[in-house]
Amino acid sequence: MVDSNLESAMQMLIKTFHKYSGKEGDKYTLSRGELKELLVEELGSYLGNSKDNEAVEKVMNDLDANNDGEVDFTEFIILMGALTVACNDFFLEYKTDDKPKDGESAQKKD
Amino acid sequence: MVDSNLESAMQMLIKTFHKYSGKEGDKYTLSRGELKELLVEELGSYLGNSKDNEAVEKVMNDLDANNDGEVDFTEFIILMGALTVACNDFFLEYKTDDKPKDGESAQKKD
Repeated sequence: MVDSNLESAMQMLIKTFHKYSGKEGDKYTLSRGELKELLVEELGSYLGNSKDNEAVEKVMNDLDANNDGEVDFTEFIILMGALTVACNDFFLEYKTDDKPKDGESAQKKD
Repeated sequence: MVDSNLESAMQMLIKTFHKYSGKEGDKYTLSRGELKELLVEELGSYLGNSKDNEAVEKVMNDLDANNDGEVDFTEFIILMGALTVACNDFFLEYKTDDKPKDGESAQKKD
């Protein structure tokens, strides 16, 4: 049986997290260094110039809800969800010509 | 440039949502019928026997935070995030032999 796109997407998220989380310290969370590696290598083109430490620090501080200096899988998924929603919004903006604007309908009324 | 796994995962989530949301009514939300089709066709093996309407109703009621009978992209991403966290937990449980349990060490006691 072939995995669906959604099943593949879930597997990729899980696999990518553990590829980096397993490198040092707690195998099941991302340290600051592991998070930085993941952001630069896997999301470089989305996050732009995230090679600078300031951007990584900002993402880490936003993500690390329980302030333990580590990002767990749930915190990582919240980041990915927020990024995906942002990408989708961008995609809809871009296709805005297809979408009737407020107060405008496809048919002419009179 | 080749997309990373995370970029592909984000694209798959966006593409799959719009494949179903575009079928009827509002092109940018899933109706009950569209959600059911998506669940059965794309997540059948995860959600088990979700062919019965009761399961679809339950997911719809849980997801539809603003009670408009439609699931928007953000609500869909919350479902996918929750499912991915559940899968990851399952995967860690399964690999539990690698991980010492609370208050238990790798050595034999007594």
